[in-house]
Amino acid sequence: MIQQLTIVGLGLVGGSVAKAARAEGAARTIVAVGRDPGRLEAARRDGAVDRVTTDLAAGLRGADFVVLAAPVGAIAAMLADVWRAAASDATLTDVGSAKAVIVGEAERLAAERPLGFVGSHPMAGSEQSGYAVARADLFRGATVIVTPTERTDPGAGKRVTQFWEGLGARVATLEAERHDRVVAAISHLPHLVAWALVDAVGRLDGEAFALAARGFKDTTRIAASDARVWREIFLQNQEALGAALAAFRAALAELEAGIAAGDGPALEDKLARIRSLRERLA
Amino acid sequence: MIQQLTIVGLGLVGGSVAKAARAEGAARTIVAVGRDPGRLEAARRDGAVDRVTTDLAAGLRGADFVVLAAPVGAIAAMLADVWRAAASDATLTDVGSAKAVIVGEAERLAAERPLGFVGSHPMAGSEQSGYAVARADLFRGATVIVTPTERTDPGAGKRVTQFWEGLGARVATLEAERHDRVVAAISHLPHLVAWALVDAVGRLDGEAFALAARGFKDTTRIAASDARVWREIFLQNQEALGAALAAFRAALAELEAGIAAGDGPALEDKLARIRSLRERLA
Repeated sequence: MIQQLTIVGLGLVGGSVAKAARAEGAARTIVAVGRDPGRLEAARRDGAVDRVTTDLAAGLRGADFVVLAAPVGAIAAMLADVWRAAASDATLTDVGSAKAVIVGEAERLAAERPLGFVGSHPMAGSEQSGYAVARADLFRGATVIVTPTERTDPGAGKRVTQFWEGLGARVATLEAERHDRVVAAISHLPHLVAWALVDAVGRLDGEAFALAARGFKDTTRIAASDARVWREIFLQNQEALGAALAAFRAALAELEAGIAAGDGPALEDKLARIRSLRERLA
Repeated sequence: MIQQLTIVGLGLVGGSVAKAARAEGAARTIVAVGRDPGRLEAARRDGAVDRVTTDLAAGLRGADFVVLAAPVGAIAAMLADVWRAAASDATLTDVGSAKAVIVGEAERLAAERPLGFVGSHPMAGSEQSGYAVARADLFRGATVIVTPTERTDPGAGKRVTQFWEGLGARVATLEAERHDRVVAAISHLPHLVAWALVDAVGRLDGEAFALAARGFKDTTRIAASDARVWREIFLQNQEALGAALAAFRAALAELEAGIAAGDGPALEDKLARIRSLRERLA
C-alpha cells in the first residue's frame, strides 16, 4: 500500500486518479498539488484527497508515489522541479498523451540523479475536462500504456503497473516513440480531423449544423475536447502527428481517386476492405 | 389515410418505413417490392407488410403512396419504370441520400407525364443495414429533408410532409442542390473521412487498433456502414462531395500550419473557436 500518493494536477484525469485510489484504498494519504485553490478545496471537501497545496515541493514532500497529471507540455516543463523535490525512493509516473518528450527529459534528469520514473498514458478520458467530471471508474476496463526504457528501475515499472491495475486498468507496454506513433494514429489524428471537419462544415454552410444527425455528432464529439489540453498534445507530438497526417492524406486521396474513377465495384471492395480492418478494434 | 402504401426496397430505411407506418396506422395496406424473396417473406410474416412481390409494376399497381427506398443509384435507375407503372394520382417519394440526380430525373420524366413526386431524405440511419435492424421508431425525432421544385404539385408536397410527420419526424425543406451540398458536408464527408482514418491507422500500425479508446471508436463508427450503400452515395454526389473535401483539406492544412508555427495561444484560440461552432448542433 502506498503511504502518500501525491497527484500534481487535478483535472479529469488527476481527479479521477484521486477518486479511484481513494475508492480502492490504494493509498493511506492522498495529496493534491494544483494552481487553482478553489478546485483543490472542492476535492478536499468531497474526501477525494486529504491535503492540498499550490506548492509543488511541499506537495511532493513525503510522497512515495507521484502521479503527474498536468497537460503534457506542463509535465515536461515541471520535471526538473519534480526531480529536485522528490524523495530518492519515490516511484513517479505521469499521464501525458505524448511520451517521447517527457521520457527523454526524465532520462536526462535520471542520468544526474536516478529516480524511479516510468511514463504512463491512460487511454481514458472524455471530451469533457476538469475536476467536476472526474470519476472513480474512469480507468476501469481502460488500457494504460506504460513506456519503460532500458534504464528504468524494474521495481518502479512493477509498482506503476500494479498501481494502474489496482484502479481497474489493463496495462500495455510500449517503447515511448512507438507509443507516440500509435497514439498519433488512433487519438491525435482523429482529434485533429474532427476539428477540421467541424471547421469545414462551418465554412461550407453554417446552417448545416442544425440538420446534422447522429453520425456527424459522434464523428466530431472529440472536437468538443479541451482546447488548452489539445494545443499541448498537438505541439508535443508534432513529428508522429505529421506522419499520421501524411498517411491519412494518402488514404483520403486514394478514396477520392476511386470515386472520381467511377468504378463502383472497385470502390465498394475498397470500402468493404477498410470496414473489415475496423473489426480489429478491441 | 393511405389506402395502399408501396415500399420499394426493404432494407433498414424501407423496412423502418413499413414498421413505422404499420405502428402508426398510416396505411390500410402495405406492399413491399424487393429483390430478395426471403427478406420480403420475413417482413410479411412479422406483419410489417401485407403483400410482397419482386415485380416492380405489380407492386406499384393500386398504390396511392409510394416510397422508393433502394440505394440511391438504384432509385435513379428505376425511376423510368416507376413512372410507367405508377397510377396518375399516386404520391411518390424516395429516401435517397443524394437528391439532385433523382429530382432531375423525376423532373425530366414529369415533363412527359406529370406525377406527384417529391424527393425526401430522412437524416436517420445507422452503420447497420438490412431489414433485420429496421425499427418502427427510426424516424422519431429525426429530420427528414424534402426537396420540392417549383414544378412540384403542392398537394403532393403536403402529403409527403404529412407522411413523415406522421412517423414522428421533423420536416425541413431544401432545394435539391442545396441539400446535396449540405449532406455532402455533414454526412458524406464525415463518412469518407472516417473510412480514410481507419485506412490510415491500418497503414501506420495494424496493432494500434487494439489500443484504441472510445474516441477512435466513435469517430470511425460510421466507417462500419454498408459499403454497397456508400459506394452509390459517393458516386451520386461527387460534385458536392468534392467541394466539401476541398473545404476540409483547407481546414486541416490551416490546423497543421498552426501546429507547425508552434504558437500555442493562437492554436488554442483556433481550436476553441471551432469547438464553439459545434455547439450549433441540434
